[in-house]
Amino acid sequence: MRFELPSIAPIHDTALAQRLQQRLDRKTKPQGSLGRLESLALRLGLIQRSEAPKLELPQMLVFAGDHGLAARGVSAFPSDVTWQMVENFLAGGAAVSVLARQHGLALTVVDAGVAHDFAPRAGLVDRKVARGTADALAGPAMSDAQCRQALAAGMAVVHELPGNAVLLGEMGIGNSSSAALLLARLAGQPIDACVGRGTGLDDAGLARKRAVLAQVLERHAGAEQPLDALQAFGGFEVAMLAGAALQAAAERRVVVVDGFIASAAVLVAVRLAPALAGYCVLAHRSAEPGHQLMVRELVQQGAAEPLLDLGLRLGEGSGAALAWPLLGSAVRVLAEMASFESAGVSDRSEA
Amino acid sequence: MRFELPSIAPIHDTALAQRLQQRLDRKTKPQGSLGRLESLALRLGLIQRSEAPKLELPQMLVFAGDHGLAARGVSAFPSDVTWQMVENFLAGGAAVSVLARQHGLALTVVDAGVAHDFAPRAGLVDRKVARGTADALAGPAMSDAQCRQALAAGMAVVHELPGNAVLLGEMGIGNSSSAALLLARLAGQPIDACVGRGTGLDDAGLARKRAVLAQVLERHAGAEQPLDALQAFGGFEVAMLAGAALQAAAERRVVVVDGFIASAAVLVAVRLAPALAGYCVLAHRSAEPGHQLMVRELVQQGAAEPLLDLGLRLGEGSGAALAWPLLGSAVRVLAEMASFESAGVSDRSEA
Repeated sequence: MRFELPSIAPIHDTALAQRLQQRLDRKTKPQGSLGRLESLALRLGLIQRSEAPKLELPQMLVFAGDHGLAARGVSAFPSDVTWQMVENFLAGGAAVSVLARQHGLALTVVDAGVAHDFAPRAGLVDRKVARGTADALAGPAMSDAQCRQALAAGMAVVHELPGNAVLLGEMGIGNSSSAALLLARLAGQPIDACVGRGTGLDDAGLARKRAVLAQVLERHAGAEQPLDALQAFGGFEVAMLAGAALQAAAERRVVVVDGFIASAAVLVAVRLAPALAGYCVLAHRSAEPGHQLMVRELVQQGAAEPLLDLGLRLGEGSGAALAWPLLGSAVRVLAEMASFESAGVSDRSEA
Repeated sequence: MRFELPSIAPIHDTALAQRLQQRLDRKTKPQGSLGRLESLALRLGLIQRSEAPKLELPQMLVFAGDHGLAARGVSAFPSDVTWQMVENFLAGGAAVSVLARQHGLALTVVDAGVAHDFAPRAGLVDRKVARGTADALAGPAMSDAQCRQALAAGMAVVHELPGNAVLLGEMGIGNSSSAALLLARLAGQPIDACVGRGTGLDDAGLARKRAVLAQVLERHAGAEQPLDALQAFGGFEVAMLAGAALQAAAERRVVVVDGFIASAAVLVAVRLAPALAGYCVLAHRSAEPGHQLMVRELVQQGAAEPLLDLGLRLGEGSGAALAWPLLGSAVRVLAEMASFESAGVSDRSEA
């Protein structure tokens, strides 16, 4: 499979934005009183090039992969938890399974590179690049070919699914390390500001993670371009997420980005194709400290600010699922609310 | 109708709280990683005295009333908008109608004291105390008898509805003035910190509103007790909201509190029955500046912190409706998520 950067059109359209804003302003409410729900509605209209955007067949995608670096003790959980959680996603018992069910999101779990052989079954897509990435402290996490294969696979996964919205989640013991490394390198942030406790390291574990990641960064000092950094730091699920986001935007789908790791993947993708940012709705502000920096980067590029701020730090796509009904509300406000004229309500100008 | 303060049991139950926490901690996720969704789940369990709380037949209640003080120019919209919006709620075109429909919330609009005669119809409950309150600058907004009648009516409205959760919203041109006055008096805050632009006053309007409200406060300097303040400042819909919250808590229903005005009503009710706070989930942080002070007061008393922070300032119950799916997620996490044991996922202790 060959990776080729898809063409993504910027969402900007001044005339349509004005028509959407006017439509929002004539709804029976004080102007702007629905706050960020209004800017979200406007963005969804721009993404779909429509004054009446609709959300159809939303797809929750959970990309899973293992990390060679996990052997260095950068996570509070053992690597086996990656495949065990994939089983849990498929059995319906994980947070993202429960929340996807609540909101009618089709759930697809993608084996991007888990160190485990899964029995084939509905809801599981096999795109395994390898049984986990290599140890990023010893060399690049992936080869150039693996990195491109993963990106292309992420694109293909989205291309094969119906609907006009994707929600991006992930699972991979050790992947908050990849995310921290990508953030540090691509946003030029000190590594200590990018590293957090992930699934719940204690103080000693956090210190170890910081020390290891500082070494990894130094080891790959030359990996400054987005794809070089991705290749150096991994993982397969991060690369597939980046590919998925690119393809979704190329097809003008809405991209709902979960937490720290999903946003790191989107950061890579936005560096490759800045217009992608306009298609991205950040679902929530994660409790993982580096996420604040990530959010700042992505919002500067044009992504929608996080909708929720609930101290989440689970990943999987759980935050994206929790935020999803707000997108539904935004399109319904545009589609279903009466205008001052249609409802016979006096506007302030008549006061 | 006679108002009698119902008896409300505190939600606290240390043993049950421990069992709920343990249950949450055994779910397949890092401990605490679902953030405030977990504390919400715990609270819902305590309210329902159950390890498996369920939300049944949620009732969105919108209390509407007019305000004598509106004639003093404290709002950007004319008083007629109150009845026009009631018609809009019932016709399904208002934000709260749209959002209640999205989330399967039964919508009941209560005429608490609108200056308009409505044709009777499904979804509209007539509890009209009078055609708007009196001018609070000239005297108390309501008589003692009217105030008690409104409180009792709010209680009766809830008592007659099924389900175990109520969402509290309101409509009433001028009622952000009542809310600001109640906050200033009951929380001992300077009036200028409590007053905002409401539906959208300009600078001159805001200055006028501040001046008028400062006079109203002085006019009723002796109204320090909660019911005296409520009587002095109004409105009928605020009193009914307070009664509705009290009755809901007495019946151990969850109380989802919308924005600035609904929280002012809850503040009055919490002053009468502090145990009520435990039953209250603040739906969102409003853009109305006084709401921050209100939130601080209510959270100190034991209410759940606002779930959303989207710059909303519409009222109606729209913020409560937007937050509603998060309550559903909280109970589903408790009910449907697998445990480490049931899913065969390794806990960190095995790392």
